[in-house]
Amino acid sequence: MKTLEIKHFLAAADLSADEIRKLFDLARAFAPHVRRGETIPLLQGKTVVNLFFENSTRTRISFELATRKLGGNTLNFATSTSSVSKGETLIDTAKNIEAMGPHCLVVRHSSAGSPTILAHTLAVPIVNAGDGFHEHPTQGLLDGFTIEEKLGTIAGKRVVILGDIAHSRVARSNIHILKKLGASVAVCGPPTLLPPKPEILGVDYAYRPEELLREADVVMALRIQLERQNRMQIPSVAEYSRIWGLSRERAKLLKPEAIILHPGPINRGVELDPEVADGPRSVILDQVFNGVITRMAVLASVCVPERLKELEKWMPKSTGGSRG
Amino acid sequence: MKTLEIKHFLAAADLSADEIRKLFDLARAFAPHVRRGETIPLLQGKTVVNLFFENSTRTRISFELATRKLGGNTLNFATSTSSVSKGETLIDTAKNIEAMGPHCLVVRHSSAGSPTILAHTLAVPIVNAGDGFHEHPTQGLLDGFTIEEKLGTIAGKRVVILGDIAHSRVARSNIHILKKLGASVAVCGPPTLLPPKPEILGVDYAYRPEELLREADVVMALRIQLERQNRMQIPSVAEYSRIWGLSRERAKLLKPEAIILHPGPINRGVELDPEVADGPRSVILDQVFNGVITRMAVLASVCVPERLKELEKWMPKSTGGSRG
Amino acid sequence: MKTLEIKHFLAAADLSADEIRKLFDLARAFAPHVRRGETIPLLQGKTVVNLFFENSTRTRISFELATRKLGGNTLNFATSTSSVSKGETLIDTAKNIEAMGPHCLVVRHSSAGSPTILAHTLAVPIVNAGDGFHEHPTQGLLDGFTIEEKLGTIAGKRVVILGDIAHSRVARSNIHILKKLGASVAVCGPPTLLPPKPEILGVDYAYRPEELLREADVVMALRIQLERQNRMQIPSVAEYSRIWGLSRERAKLLKPEAIILHPGPINRGVELDPEVADGPRSVILDQVFNGVITRMAVLASVCVPERLKELEKWMPKSTGGSRG
Repeated sequence: MKTLEIKHFLAAADLSADEIRKLFDLARAFAPHVRRGETIPLLQGKTVVNLFFENSTRTRISFELATRKLGGNTLNFATSTSSVSKGETLIDTAKNIEAMGPHCLVVRHSSAGSPTILAHTLAVPIVNAGDGFHEHPTQGLLDGFTIEEKLGTIAGKRVVILGDIAHSRVARSNIHILKKLGASVAVCGPPTLLPPKPEILGVDYAYRPEELLREADVVMALRIQLERQNRMQIPSVAEYSRIWGLSRERAKLLKPEAIILHPGPINRGVELDPEVADGPRSVILDQVFNGVITRMAVLASVCVPERLKELEKWMPKSTGGSRG
Repeated sequence: MKTLEIKHFLAAADLSADEIRKLFDLARAFAPHVRRGETIPLLQGKTVVNLFFENSTRTRISFELATRKLGGNTLNFATSTSSVSKGETLIDTAKNIEAMGPHCLVVRHSSAGSPTILAHTLAVPIVNAGDGFHEHPTQGLLDGFTIEEKLGTIAGKRVVILGDIAHSRVARSNIHILKKLGASVAVCGPPTLLPPKPEILGVDYAYRPEELLREADVVMALRIQLERQNRMQIPSVAEYSRIWGLSRERAKLLKPEAIILHPGPINRGVELDPEVADGPRSVILDQVFNGVITRMAVLASVCVPERLKELEKWMPKSTGGSRG
Repeated sequence: MKTLEIKHFLAAADLSADEIRKLFDLARAFAPHVRRGETIPLLQGKTVVNLFFENSTRTRISFELATRKLGGNTLNFATSTSSVSKGETLIDTAKNIEAMGPHCLVVRHSSAGSPTILAHTLAVPIVNAGDGFHEHPTQGLLDGFTIEEKLGTIAGKRVVILGDIAHSRVARSNIHILKKLGASVAVCGPPTLLPPKPEILGVDYAYRPEELLREADVVMALRIQLERQNRMQIPSVAEYSRIWGLSRERAKLLKPEAIILHPGPINRGVELDPEVADGPRSVILDQVFNGVITRMAVLASVCVPERLKELEKWMPKSTGGSRG
């Protein structure tokens, strides 16, 4: 059997179903240790640099905690206080950081493809923490993992992604992961927030949630970027909420066992009714915990490939291959 | 004898005299180790998140050092770079952080009661690092500890708090701690900066420092928030300094053994004459050191209650009960 | 033989040739361990505070990594979020930080002499990470080290520093280090960017690079502070680049073995043609790596003088004294 060999972690599109399952297995193996507050010292003496050219406290903290729970150190490099504002190019900045000897760069950037460019230029492993409208692969991984944990399997499940699909790297990464593991995916949102041809992504679509909710096993409500709505892609937030928000009434259309995801942070009363967000179907806080353990799986895989054998010791005897 | 059991650390008002004394004992036990630069590894493998919705480098660094001197890790979450600016509620933000598995949240917020709300909502221990005009209980603890260290006891001592009492969470926390340990407290300041009925706080008051200084064992000068004085609660900073500042002349009214505290940062020449601030009565830098060790006591108590027995090993045989 | 005894690290001007060589030896001894990703636990349990009153992500990260590769902890205190904006004096801020018990303060400040003032006031070791137009001694150290590593020796070499000499603390620290080790230094730039009397610095000068490049063993191109050029000390950036930039044509004037340094971040196409910056003469990324190991040498020397004997164990038997 091939072992898990990932040099960089750039895009969900690049992963095979087998690699995704191995990362899930690793995260699953870490979970009980993390729940007990234990450190798994695979990154002892290693430094992971969070190279964030775009603000994201939540994702940064998740990566920081993932690093520390593996016994590693973190260093934060945030754009607003960086030499980038002095006109340095992305590649020069990254090469400089690399020359200081870190063991991994976790990169977030507003330009699609930036982490890939760095992966072609640098020797240090690169993990994509979100690049423009392209991908946010660790989010896709944690969402897929959460679905598998809650529903037992992803294969054969119907997942409805609701909201701003056109500008969502979260949607893109999820579609890749979920389809590779056998799910059927539909997207739904105002015509202005869907891509011109959603079928290119290999998904169904509808403009009204009512057309999709009854058959859904999973609803993933995406965040409306209120701060972007001066561009007026929707008539108003109130209208969005009325037609596409997951209200209590709309949530009643779901099958009894269906679950609800949201990548956070939630706009309460916009994408989700507060009662729905806090209700029994909501697995939002599971997503947050799973974010830490799946990122641990990614960091361990790219940072300490020489300890792969040891990593596999952590995995269950029967790998997830049979699950999907 | 009851052991020290504090789930959260929210308000000085909630503490019993016995709990305060136990925290003092613990801080006192840590002190020589910290002075020698030793780490006391009670928080090994634990992560304390500083969740600061209000800026305070000084308090944050004190908590960070306290955590590290206990062998723990710190993570900083500052409001300006957070998803809070994206409209997320306080509770959602905190629940998300909690779901990532930290062992303690140190919370500073401009709204009184925020840490208490979080303590009712979350399972993770909450430490209040200052909430609006309500309380700053670790500051009260460190000030009380400094007085006991310098004067041998707090019981029977006369403490004069000078300045903006109405808007001071430092004053509130100090009054609770000092009165519980048997001090007599008076407050003094311009009528616009005293609460409407100071006697409700269980303290005496006067408008002029001269009426109180001769009898004082301790003078605590509070910081004038220059940045707030566009609201013009005092005619001018110069006038404040002339009437309520602890000048060299006014300091001569004090008993020989009286000490002077200030929570910092000092406005030199406003609350304290520079010579007074640097003089032999000033215990300001002791307060800063004691801030680290008392915060170590608080963090150890809330984070590792299962090691309480071990904590008590650190305490002196005769606990401080007899001191007060 | 005298051992290395540096209480503070304030200015290259204060260092003897012997001290510089000892720091080089220490950095050289650390290098292979750092390359292998190993931690050298000389600062285990120690905390280094980065007290940066002026923004510099790059220098801060270099000091952070240096500290961690020695097993120590770092704490960042940045001005924009500090009590300094509340009117506290530099000395009060530093005294407060010192009272919390760190083992070293790394200070960057826009006022020349600030670290020296702190060294006279505080007991904790101070490392200057750049003060106004005065010095940036660790940059001088890393540049000198890089030249010695690349050319075998500094003695007898001709170094040309190109650019804004008048406002460059990098140039000042380099001139001190390089001359102490026997180099001959020349400076070159527009008359408005040279000091009034360059000969006072003990260097030659010319206004046109062509007059100096043929004889150079080392060219150090300094960064043009684009953000300062509203003060218009040069007619335009394009003109600067045309006359003083290290273009491909101008680089052809250099001896075959000459090397090119730049303290970073580079303005590509201004100080250096991109092809020159990435070419075989460029040692810019070596400078970045050497920045980490020379800062490790400085931090180890000032933080753990009691382990000096142990430090010397790391050094080669024949110290660098014979090299210069």
